[in-house]
Amino acid sequence: MPDRASVKEALRAQRIETPSWGYANSGTRFKVFAQPGVPRTPQEKIADAATVHRFTGVAPSVALHIPWDAVEDYAALTRHAADLGVEIGAINTNVFQDPDYKLGSVTNPDPGIRRKATDHLLDAVAIMDATGSRDLKLWFSDGLNYPGQDDLRARQDRLAAALREAYDRLGGHQRMLLEYKLFEPAFYATDVPDWGTAYAHCVELGERAAVCIDTGHHAPGTNIEFIVAFLLRQGRLGAFDFNSRFYADDDLMVGAADPFQLFRIMHEIVGAGALDPARGINFMLDQCHNIEAKIPAVIRSVMNVQEATAKALLVERDALAAAQRAGDVLEANAVLMDAYNTDVRPLLAELRADSGLDPDPVAAYRRSGYQQAIEAERVGGEQAGWGA
Amino acid sequence: MPDRASVKEALRAQRIETPSWGYANSGTRFKVFAQPGVPRTPQEKIADAATVHRFTGVAPSVALHIPWDAVEDYAALTRHAADLGVEIGAINTNVFQDPDYKLGSVTNPDPGIRRKATDHLLDAVAIMDATGSRDLKLWFSDGLNYPGQDDLRARQDRLAAALREAYDRLGGHQRMLLEYKLFEPAFYATDVPDWGTAYAHCVELGERAAVCIDTGHHAPGTNIEFIVAFLLRQGRLGAFDFNSRFYADDDLMVGAADPFQLFRIMHEIVGAGALDPARGINFMLDQCHNIEAKIPAVIRSVMNVQEATAKALLVERDALAAAQRAGDVLEANAVLMDAYNTDVRPLLAELRADSGLDPDPVAAYRRSGYQQAIEAERVGGEQAGWGA
Amino acid sequence: MPDRASVKEALRAQRIETPSWGYANSGTRFKVFAQPGVPRTPQEKIADAATVHRFTGVAPSVALHIPWDAVEDYAALTRHAADLGVEIGAINTNVFQDPDYKLGSVTNPDPGIRRKATDHLLDAVAIMDATGSRDLKLWFSDGLNYPGQDDLRARQDRLAAALREAYDRLGGHQRMLLEYKLFEPAFYATDVPDWGTAYAHCVELGERAAVCIDTGHHAPGTNIEFIVAFLLRQGRLGAFDFNSRFYADDDLMVGAADPFQLFRIMHEIVGAGALDPARGINFMLDQCHNIEAKIPAVIRSVMNVQEATAKALLVERDALAAAQRAGDVLEANAVLMDAYNTDVRPLLAELRADSGLDPDPVAAYRRSGYQQAIEAERVGGEQAGWGA
Amino acid sequence: MPDRASVKEALRAQRIETPSWGYANSGTRFKVFAQPGVPRTPQEKIADAATVHRFTGVAPSVALHIPWDAVEDYAALTRHAADLGVEIGAINTNVFQDPDYKLGSVTNPDPGIRRKATDHLLDAVAIMDATGSRDLKLWFSDGLNYPGQDDLRARQDRLAAALREAYDRLGGHQRMLLEYKLFEPAFYATDVPDWGTAYAHCVELGERAAVCIDTGHHAPGTNIEFIVAFLLRQGRLGAFDFNSRFYADDDLMVGAADPFQLFRIMHEIVGAGALDPARGINFMLDQCHNIEAKIPAVIRSVMNVQEATAKALLVERDALAAAQRAGDVLEANAVLMDAYNTDVRPLLAELRADSGLDPDPVAAYRRSGYQQAIEAERVGGEQAGWGA
Repeated sequence: MPDRASVKEALRAQRIETPSWGYANSGTRFKVFAQPGVPRTPQEKIADAATVHRFTGVAPSVALHIPWDAVEDYAALTRHAADLGVEIGAINTNVFQDPDYKLGSVTNPDPGIRRKATDHLLDAVAIMDATGSRDLKLWFSDGLNYPGQDDLRARQDRLAAALREAYDRLGGHQRMLLEYKLFEPAFYATDVPDWGTAYAHCVELGERAAVCIDTGHHAPGTNIEFIVAFLLRQGRLGAFDFNSRFYADDDLMVGAADPFQLFRIMHEIVGAGALDPARGINFMLDQCHNIEAKIPAVIRSVMNVQEATAKALLVERDALAAAQRAGDVLEANAVLMDAYNTDVRPLLAELRADSGLDPDPVAAYRRSGYQQAIEAERVGGEQAGWGA
Repeated sequence: MPDRASVKEALRAQRIETPSWGYANSGTRFKVFAQPGVPRTPQEKIADAATVHRFTGVAPSVALHIPWDAVEDYAALTRHAADLGVEIGAINTNVFQDPDYKLGSVTNPDPGIRRKATDHLLDAVAIMDATGSRDLKLWFSDGLNYPGQDDLRARQDRLAAALREAYDRLGGHQRMLLEYKLFEPAFYATDVPDWGTAYAHCVELGERAAVCIDTGHHAPGTNIEFIVAFLLRQGRLGAFDFNSRFYADDDLMVGAADPFQLFRIMHEIVGAGALDPARGINFMLDQCHNIEAKIPAVIRSVMNVQEATAKALLVERDALAAAQRAGDVLEANAVLMDAYNTDVRPLLAELRADSGLDPDPVAAYRRSGYQQAIEAERVGGEQAGWGA
Repeated sequence: MPDRASVKEALRAQRIETPSWGYANSGTRFKVFAQPGVPRTPQEKIADAATVHRFTGVAPSVALHIPWDAVEDYAALTRHAADLGVEIGAINTNVFQDPDYKLGSVTNPDPGIRRKATDHLLDAVAIMDATGSRDLKLWFSDGLNYPGQDDLRARQDRLAAALREAYDRLGGHQRMLLEYKLFEPAFYATDVPDWGTAYAHCVELGERAAVCIDTGHHAPGTNIEFIVAFLLRQGRLGAFDFNSRFYADDDLMVGAADPFQLFRIMHEIVGAGALDPARGINFMLDQCHNIEAKIPAVIRSVMNVQEATAKALLVERDALAAAQRAGDVLEANAVLMDAYNTDVRPLLAELRADSGLDPDPVAAYRRSGYQQAIEAERVGGEQAGWGA
Repeated sequence: MPDRASVKEALRAQRIETPSWGYANSGTRFKVFAQPGVPRTPQEKIADAATVHRFTGVAPSVALHIPWDAVEDYAALTRHAADLGVEIGAINTNVFQDPDYKLGSVTNPDPGIRRKATDHLLDAVAIMDATGSRDLKLWFSDGLNYPGQDDLRARQDRLAAALREAYDRLGGHQRMLLEYKLFEPAFYATDVPDWGTAYAHCVELGERAAVCIDTGHHAPGTNIEFIVAFLLRQGRLGAFDFNSRFYADDDLMVGAADPFQLFRIMHEIVGAGALDPARGINFMLDQCHNIEAKIPAVIRSVMNVQEATAKALLVERDALAAAQRAGDVLEANAVLMDAYNTDVRPLLAELRADSGLDPDPVAAYRRSGYQQAIEAERVGGEQAGWGA
């Protein structure tokens, strides 16, 4: 049976990165419902992320999205974060909102637009240099809405060229994370639609390119933990964008739609020893809190990842391996389910208390007065959003 | 073999309604790419719809969306349409964009918000009275993003109550069309998610309630023509919202993603004699032309429906029935495919020429100068969109 | 907070029916892997079902499948069951394995074949009369593999006629359960593909016709608990065929693929007071244990339903309703998740101990020697299977 | 505009391989409906394949499936084929029907079973040596039904080891084709579930390993032509298993479910110059004619591929490229649709007549008396099937 002390040690070392845009307004094409207290600046987003870290203890970095989080002085922004107790995490590029990108960014048939988009990627590396960020995270909305609209193979060549430029610009300590997505906003064909495409490009680029798995970006029926296991085996799992979904890319709180799936994913991570921050996998959230209160939703999401991780750490791996070797399907499944069915909330409450945190972070946040304060202070100006 | 004259007669009688919002800007949650020449007013949208009718000859009505198309004087708007040669079609309600509707409209737990939403439905009937519109089309975005968020059964009771009020407000010549949708913008549960739910409510309401099938609102693998056939049998097929999709509710041009599916749908319509406008089925488009030119996209969509219809009319129904009776699977399928594989474009070109139309509506539109004119004239003001 | 005593009382009253064919060999079109000890006769299947009841205490009836379980003397079979402590449950018809049914049974274009199939349904009611069974469960594999193969509407008329005959044959205490399925073995169109179709036929038939929900028979993304809630509201939920699936109709152990979904289903059941056996909902398993040991798999499945039910009973419904009324999305979801995250295994162990059962039914079965006994005894003869 | 002569030349050079098992009985787990005249031996299957070639002129090879087509003397079988005018195509291995393979073949936790399965792969290469076959086609049903059942990563290591052995056994003119499949018969996790997994293994193996795309083996919403284009770009597209599907792996006649998709696939093939047999892509059928007459179904399938190819050859590629460069979404789509909407049946009829074939192969087959002859002759013995 897993040693309780080592389980707690692993949980204490866990790191989850929250996204600046998760604190901003978001919605669907039908409506963005604004919420009171939403940040108006990157600095305020970082303050919210720091608040999540203050109550959870495991969220010490915040991912930025450029140009949503563009500022004049990135060194100052980095110091602002440090003052609040967090670091700047992955730098996310955005080449999907300029009017020029209507038919694509780095895969656009127009070389001038490709140049502009590629330059944006290079600029993002400069921001990494300024902020000390390790990860360049690339998601491209590029694709086609209609058959025939453009040449599928030619677009791959253009994509490869842009990725090469950006990769070669990276410093030795920096990495490229390439994200894939089945569809949306492109409806017929997406230029990086699946892990296989991202993986093949990463292999061609070099050792510091790795795949980012967004848990909401797959076709129905896709076994995500298989992809996790396969990329771990190939040494190309770079990061997660955690969220959950029932249908498409719903961007709900991770663990809200299928907590058993999240557990199975973390079971692969733990089994491969990849939970250890030294292994370099960036466990990020990528969520949209369209109708629920944002900061407590992020806190809850962090807790959901912790709970799935705790359960994965509790799997009796020797018993599991023995049942697997014996071909005892029911027993092997039962060993896994025993861990999943365990209520790990007391263990996590204890872990938090050990670290001087409130055992119930959501309740503590609600009591803290932070929400009331930001609702009172953040009046006037323009609330942050996607600017779609 | 189907008589060519009667095929042409049926095609000449066909009516396809276009949506005012299809001429406006639209997009995804990531970006709305504005286009030059887009209408700024309901009057300009109607002018665009009239232009589509002028080049196709089969699109003599335009659906409105309230409040996007709200005006002071509906009688004047109706005359404006008549002056341009078109009629006002279905009145679409919108109870998803007011901040009050964040957690639902007619199914909201708050009775005050339900009252407000229901009143909007009643107001829409008043607009029908003023415009002579026959169809009240109801789509509700109501639903839940998270399990537990609200009570699924209670929401059905609230829905039924609102539908009852609206139904009872209808005049004797007016109808209610109830649309369903699997998901989006609600991500966990939608209050009218499938045809069965819409059908059950319609039966409870009365004879003048019927189901509207949006071809993009189904789960993967759903056989839409089965639903068409079943609702025809039950006498509850009221309308189509035509569009096409590869993944979710992509709202692409009808016939663009799976033209064979569109043919199969029209095959059921023709087989049941339901193409005849006297049968009362409203064949509407509901599309978003996010990246393609809007007016020619609508023209092309109308033509796609015509082509599918022409093929359906060409099915040799006696031979088909004989093969079906004989249990000859291959021959029955071959009879259907023979019609589908026929190139009906010459027949439709001839039909247009017979009616004094250009045989190639898209080319005629492009030559007409209309696009250049609206791009020059429609400068200043605010382009119409969804206002999300 | 729910009263522990009343939770236990509800769990003690729970009834789960197991299927005779779940104890037989099964597999895929690629291979049926036979297992030692599999029953050769209906009597032996009933003995296995009785064994499951002996260890779980909540599975006192067994569903039969005709002709797989056809015997000369049904009264004797009923006594055999009673002697072993179980009852005969639902009678399942089979009109998909006779060569005549290649192109359909009750919807076949050939009236002679329809007659034969309908007679089989009537014969099944006679078996119900002989066994005291209440439920006639109908699943039709009828459908089309190719577009055009037959007329979709005509098949509905034929279906309605056969259902009418069978319904009218029922005694006053008997019911018809109509099951639906998206696809398989028909690949293009299935004659009863969704709950809406089953529901519409049930309403036409009369009050004693109700829908059976097989949890594996839906399109990807379908919200099953919504269907449960809706049919409960309409008074037409007759039964479940429980199992679980990742992709298609996988027929895995219920609760194995998505235990949170099973909990949400039971939450709707409990919320509507429909767990009570007096409400008449038949909670059946319908599973295929292709590679795992059959009897312990059924035991485990029964336990999975119990665990999901226990969690549903633990939902703090007052707190849930309060959060829902307040529009507090996160809190409402949290109340539901609190119940789901509870480890109910100790409660169920206690419940079993209270009833004189072993708290760990799988372990108790393995220790009991039953498996070794049937492997030794059931040698020779032909093992039961699907006979495909 | 494409030159008619060169279009015909390309069509004349086209080669489609038919599968021996397509002529045998097949079905679902529910029922295999036997058909009169079905072959009882590999020799009779080859005779049927030769008949398809005789009427279509483009199907000069037949794939074998071992052990279904195992014979004592492969040289004799090869001569038998040659005498009938066809060649032996790909050799398909079968490591899913022996009782030992219940929990996997090359990925089984038991090393003895892995040895046995790997030896079967090596034996298949020996059959290739004897028959002159170029392609070793590997499909593994290996996978898991339940979470925890086995270790996902360990299974990949075992898979890689077996593939390596088989690859190293190949002669210099021989190739390995690795097929992937989302699910079935494994329901939770499949060891080669997607093209990315197959591709990664092929790259590790060496230049003569390539991916086989079965058009029915994808998750809903997967863009298959993207995979075609991507693998062509990477030089790793080895073969197709053509068929069509509405839901899962339905194995219906290619082109029957979504003829537009088939056209889009062939458009990528033609655009990359990969139709030319010298490019080495093996265009195979992999179908099950469960309820339709088998030989005419295969003929029809071959014709469907021809028709899709002819349409793809008719795409005005210069106009398409110009529209794509101009960013004219509607025009680019229209150019593609113009080719798709063309009725190419007259062109293909002419092509057949040029080659001395009957322009209507299905009618010619039906008139030929072959079916009546085999139904009369093939009496007694055991009809070929899957032996599941």
